[in-house]
Amino acid sequence: MKKRIAVLPGDGIGREVMEGAVRILKAVADCFDHEFEFTEGLIGGAAIDAKGNPLPPETLEICRESDAILLGAVGGPKWSDVPTDIRPEKGLLGLRKEMGLFANLRPVTAYQQLVNASPLKREVIENVDLMIVRELTGGIYFGKSERRGENNDVAVDTLQYDVHEIERIVEKAFQLASVRRKKLTSVDKANVLESSRMWREIVDKVSVNYPDVQVEHMLVDSTAMKLIHQPGDFDVVVTENMFGDILSDEASMIAGSLGMLPSASLRSDSVGLYEPVHGSAPDIAGENKANPLAMILSAAMMLKYSFDLEKESRAVEAAVTEVLNDGYYTSDVGVSGKCIGTKEMIDKVMDKL
Amino acid sequence: MKKRIAVLPGDGIGREVMEGAVRILKAVADCFDHEFEFTEGLIGGAAIDAKGNPLPPETLEICRESDAILLGAVGGPKWSDVPTDIRPEKGLLGLRKEMGLFANLRPVTAYQQLVNASPLKREVIENVDLMIVRELTGGIYFGKSERRGENNDVAVDTLQYDVHEIERIVEKAFQLASVRRKKLTSVDKANVLESSRMWREIVDKVSVNYPDVQVEHMLVDSTAMKLIHQPGDFDVVVTENMFGDILSDEASMIAGSLGMLPSASLRSDSVGLYEPVHGSAPDIAGENKANPLAMILSAAMMLKYSFDLEKESRAVEAAVTEVLNDGYYTSDVGVSGKCIGTKEMIDKVMDKL
Ligand SMILES: CC(C)[C@H](C(=O)O)[C@@H](O)C(=O)O
Ligand SMILES: CC(C)[C@H](C(=O)O)[C@@H](O)C(=O)O
Repeated sequence: MKKRIAVLPGDGIGREVMEGAVRILKAVADCFDHEFEFTEGLIGGAAIDAKGNPLPPETLEICRESDAILLGAVGGPKWSDVPTDIRPEKGLLGLRKEMGLFANLRPVTAYQQLVNASPLKREVIENVDLMIVRELTGGIYFGKSERRGENNDVAVDTLQYDVHEIERIVEKAFQLASVRRKKLTSVDKANVLESSRMWREIVDKVSVNYPDVQVEHMLVDSTAMKLIHQPGDFDVVVTENMFGDILSDEASMIAGSLGMLPSASLRSDSVGLYEPVHGSAPDIAGENKANPLAMILSAAMMLKYSFDLEKESRAVEAAVTEVLNDGYYTSDVGVSGKCIGTKEMIDKVMDKL
Repeated sequence: MKKRIAVLPGDGIGREVMEGAVRILKAVADCFDHEFEFTEGLIGGAAIDAKGNPLPPETLEICRESDAILLGAVGGPKWSDVPTDIRPEKGLLGLRKEMGLFANLRPVTAYQQLVNASPLKREVIENVDLMIVRELTGGIYFGKSERRGENNDVAVDTLQYDVHEIERIVEKAFQLASVRRKKLTSVDKANVLESSRMWREIVDKVSVNYPDVQVEHMLVDSTAMKLIHQPGDFDVVVTENMFGDILSDEASMIAGSLGMLPSASLRSDSVGLYEPVHGSAPDIAGENKANPLAMILSAAMMLKYSFDLEKESRAVEAAVTEVLNDGYYTSDVGVSGKCIGTKEMIDKVMDKL
């Protein structure tokens, strides 16, 4: 199989962890006889420095011509004073929107080997295997936002969804639930928001087509509690953009370290963007300390969701699990075992693969 | 001291736990020579049943004529099919808005005695003593909300704040921080929302008047993580209405049970509304199972914040702590010790007082 992959390392530890993903993918191509063509592009702070634009047109062009996109991380204190509309994050938000990547999938699995690294008790997180499906190109992130009033003393943001935007993300969530444990939790704030009431109606409507998926509606505040209290109860959780941002970061703590968590951002065809949940971690950038596993597991998601290469995807995941079984970890994971650097961790996964 | 107290038991376990608060307050009045006058009013589902309105004008009148308001809990499945605009929650939201109770204070303390009941590890929650200050009468809760478009297929909610609304809540948070550990975390989503950028500016402006309070800005998604990861790092956390709703429910899990957590909703004068963080728990209503401590601790907050009776407030808190020290708990708290009912728990606190 021949595939074109856009590679956007971004800022901070982005480049270090990206190296891991690219090395692993090259090994996968060799082992399984595929051809992956990598094209690098600038995004975020690196793109601001080089082009004065966090999402230069060349980068968008590379992404449009690719079958999938790998992204490291964007942002850092260096760019905290640039004007809001060209901040590094705008590059990421712009890319999601321009590419129509409306479905953000964030799986959270509690690795047995890392259970000590989690702030939650072992019995609470054992067996956790959930997937947050976050709407990524709508809601308050992209609604009208302005200052009004005589002295610009009123600030307004708009949470807006149309039926179509909700239908397609809900549909995606049902599809995912139906090939998992067949339970879908739809999260909203229907006792306050009109958009949530519309969301709830649409979930109920779509559910008719998935009679084998058990559906529950849960308020966002209750969900924030239950994610800590009984995370093992969740299978697929679907929610709008801002709630998804908050809940998925919260849920990420279950795994013990952000450094373990991959994500996929998909649209209706097979094109997707794959990035670790963690940020650019400028404090440890360039120090060979970053955990490359979230980026490597993101590449595994790409193999599965964009290229339909299940076997290859599982091989990468298995290699990661074996390295953890051997007791190796990077310094973000505070457990007992053998602490190694970014490069060494990549080597270990390569060996297993 | 003579004070008028509005008593709104509401629905579900509201009446049972309210009995505890009233008994304790009567005892406080006796011991410390005060006169508390209690006037009961209907709210929520109980008011819908009796008057077809979750916030009848009589109730609002009682509240307006009182020095403080005690509220049990509102809502339940019985009223899930009534029209949205007269749902039980609307009674609570209406009361907050009509009374101008813009500052919601939710303290979270990890009781040593209940540390086993928390899903978080002992070392994570030991020493937690934080206070979430949530803006309660603005933001997306009270902005314009509608369906638009040809077939009503667009739903819109509006997050709106003016400078004054933000200033007063931020001011309140600084005041609270300056009599605590002098650390204020302001939570927003300034990388996405205009209202958050205004919020940040105002926090920076007000901070000039509180040079001894250390201020940090934190994004809501990072905060959702850190509340689980290092909750002991927080002192006072200030945020807008919806973020506060989510984060305070999340933070409540630190304490092990919602049944322990009180709240106060204040305005600029001394009038306030005091209610437990938990809901009406219809599943255990009338079974003598509810934990009355959150309601009793809410009454303690009333003594402190509305009546300036610090000594009396501390006496109630001390009585609660002693009962916990004796190993007693209600069934919501899954620890080893002596499990007792609502009434018995109230008796125990009375004895200690
Ligand atoms: C960087 C920021 C704009 C972004 C978001 O809020 O979507 C990030 O938090 C994420 O979750 O990918
Ligand atoms: C009942 C509901 C409208 C309310 C809120 O969202 O404010 C509740 O969750 C709370 O936190 O008091």
